Amino acid sequence: MPDSGRIAERLERLWALASGPGGGADRPAYSPAEAEAMLLVAGWAREHGLEPGIDAHGNLWALPAGWSGAIVTAGSHVDTVPDGGRYDGALGTVLGLELVADLEPARGDLEAGAGERARAGLLVCAAEEAPRFGAGTLGSRLMAGTIQRSALSQLRDAAGVTAAEALDAYLRELRELPRVKPPLDRWRAHAEVHVAQRRALRTLGVVTTVASPRRFAVQVIGEAGHSGEIPMAARHDALAAAAEMVLAVEAAAHRQPDETVATVGTVAVSPGALSVIPGEARLGIDVRGISSESLAEIDAEIRASVAEIADRRGVRATVEQVRGGDPATLDGDLVDAALSAAREHGIHASPTWSGAGHDAQHIAALAPALLLFVPLHGGESHTPQEGASMDEILQAATVMNAVLSACALDSRRGV
Amino acid sequence: MPDSGRIAERLERLWALASGPGGGADRPAYSPAEAEAMLLVAGWAREHGLEPGIDAHGNLWALPAGWSGAIVTAGSHVDTVPDGGRYDGALGTVLGLELVADLEPARGDLEAGAGERARAGLLVCAAEEAPRFGAGTLGSRLMAGTIQRSALSQLRDAAGVTAAEALDAYLRELRELPRVKPPLDRWRAHAEVHVAQRRALRTLGVVTTVASPRRFAVQVIGEAGHSGEIPMAARHDALAAAAEMVLAVEAAAHRQPDETVATVGTVAVSPGALSVIPGEARLGIDVRGISSESLAEIDAEIRASVAEIADRRGVRATVEQVRGGDPATLDGDLVDAALSAAREHGIHASPTWSGAGHDAQHIAALAPALLLFVPLHGGESHTPQEGASMDEILQAATVMNAVLSACALDSRRGV
Repeated sequence: MPDSGRIAERLERLWALASGPGGGADRPAYSPAEAEAMLLVAGWAREHGLEPGIDAHGNLWALPAGWSGAIVTAGSHVDTVPDGGRYDGALGTVLGLELVADLEPARGDLEAGAGERARAGLLVCAAEEAPRFGAGTLGSRLMAGTIQRSALSQLRDAAGVTAAEALDAYLRELRELPRVKPPLDRWRAHAEVHVAQRRALRTLGVVTTVASPRRFAVQVIGEAGHSGEIPMAARHDALAAAAEMVLAVEAAAHRQPDETVATVGTVAVSPGALSVIPGEARLGIDVRGISSESLAEIDAEIRASVAEIADRRGVRATVEQVRGGDPATLDGDLVDAALSAAREHGIHASPTWSGAGHDAQHIAALAPALLLFVPLHGGESHTPQEGASMDEILQAATVMNAVLSACALDSRRGV
Repeated sequence: MPDSGRIAERLERLWALASGPGGGADRPAYSPAEAEAMLLVAGWAREHGLEPGIDAHGNLWALPAGWSGAIVTAGSHVDTVPDGGRYDGALGTVLGLELVADLEPARGDLEAGAGERARAGLLVCAAEEAPRFGAGTLGSRLMAGTIQRSALSQLRDAAGVTAAEALDAYLRELRELPRVKPPLDRWRAHAEVHVAQRRALRTLGVVTTVASPRRFAVQVIGEAGHSGEIPMAARHDALAAAAEMVLAVEAAAHRQPDETVATVGTVAVSPGALSVIPGEARLGIDVRGISSESLAEIDAEIRASVAEIADRRGVRATVEQVRGGDPATLDGDLVDAALSAAREHGIHASPTWSGAGHDAQHIAALAPALLLFVPLHGGESHTPQEGASMDEILQAATVMNAVLSACALDSRRGV
């Protein structure tokens, strides 16, 4: 049985580890604070009889000592956005240990039973959050091979530190843990519980599809000039053109189904002085959806609008897709198993989708992956006010443990 | 007679003093490079028999040694925007020395003539350009008392250095020059020649009115949220609202006369991450015009638009005027004298206005001030490509010297 006291205590210890100026959890990707959190979790894993180790990408694996048979894992991540919440990442990590507590204590029985029965372990992925390097789920994507290690040298934080340098420093902080290889060939299933990031979800959510973000960079080149000396009719103001593009992106998303959204999250102008008409503007666009057709439509609409606005205003504009992403469909058997387990335990659960990216969608390329959402309470996700109810947390743990317990016993699952 | 070889050589020496990454002149306000330029000019002033000194605001005064009678001055500034041009500020400074060369060599005649005849000096104002501290014409405004010394502690550059600290460091660099007081009680007139910043002006411009910039800061508070998890219809995106405001500012200026312009030159969003809907946006607006009625109209239109957009989108928005400014009318007698002198010398000249701020408009509160524009050639003002023709430079110097020479002889001018 998941232990609510232990869950709450561990969430509190992770929460208290490092705070941002807004009072939220502050453990950036590949930072000393993330490393410290990993060490804290590694200590808890040892209490459960697991042997913690770190893979080359910085992911924490804690597996039964000396066991070379099949495994099932659960976990999430321990890095956070700046001033993040108490549950994001931390909750799934702490519940990964509850899975181990549920499946592992009767080790005598397990060992007596079978070589084919999988044992339970913990996987905490590194650098899941995007803000520091402008790219998230680094640990799981490196493991799945959908991002190359060389790409880390191209990602820089605001201080100019590359993700490659940050990973090296982070691995040095964790040098007390043995280096391990991901046990890909004996991995039967993985599960991640995450606090929901969409208020509309009011039951336990069993995720069927994850919208992978597509990212676009728009550059507008106009003509700089003295703000007091160029008449309005002679201007080619890059920011005014970009402002129309922001509104065009918004309008294009409004014409799509609710699950398709588009956001201009970053804007920069050059030279950025009050006395100079902006000569250049850059926008960063994030587009997500669970329908490939809808994504193709909005992509085309955004490109057409940018071209039309640039042409009409006499500026040059380019749209570059800087990150591709197609919706990911998660394992249907695990979805069905979770919905069944919920029914058996009298827990309200429903199939749902995720607009946010999660490690589970990348792990899905390596092992069947289950992603469960606990309803969001309190304030928004990714803020210090983010909340969750312990009753609903225990329900998620119960369903996850039931599904992975069945996987552990199901030797048809290959490994 | 103004000496074209000497003018070109001095412009070249100032240009070569410090270069920015784009190959332009790089002498920021109150920087060591500005101090070095002041020392270079002080040396030239000594060659013309003047005694250079620095006032408390960092302005360079070079006046006839031992002379306590009336003076007329000319000059401009030697600081630049980042990667600025060869002429901006430097031209008027170098021509100030040509005024002295024209009026002072016959010193014997002058002294024989009269105690009432004014003698010529040079005034080079400090910290005219706005980019470093977000506020320009500091030297002339401090002297005129339209900005207080205490305000310098509130202005910071990108590195966090206050204008007060920068002024102190700059004065230490200039400690070899004696400290002087501005000779306000015996100042008969001042003239500044500046390269035009508006391409449309194709003759020598005699400035009648200067548009003083009004600056507004707009803050929009919306609701941040996960870019993948909040449906479009539930959003209160601060950047989307700000984008509408950028376009409303532009449209409001289009409805005014050509001389009224409005520019959104700066924009910032928070948190500024691709995965987060902007919760806050800030815009910096610059409004200029030479008609007070037009300025009042556009001010009211901008405020009304911001309020309407905020209300419709369910965000909060404030408009704060961070700098006031009314159009400045320059001395009508000097304008007439300049237009007459041009006619007498067969030089094409026309009355004009300035959309950019200049020291002369602040000096106008202390002494009659003349502002002449030399037509712009090459690339835009405030860029390394900025150009001017030597023939037109010599025409401006001829007109300026004629006007100030007449002032020097005109004892009705009080001092």
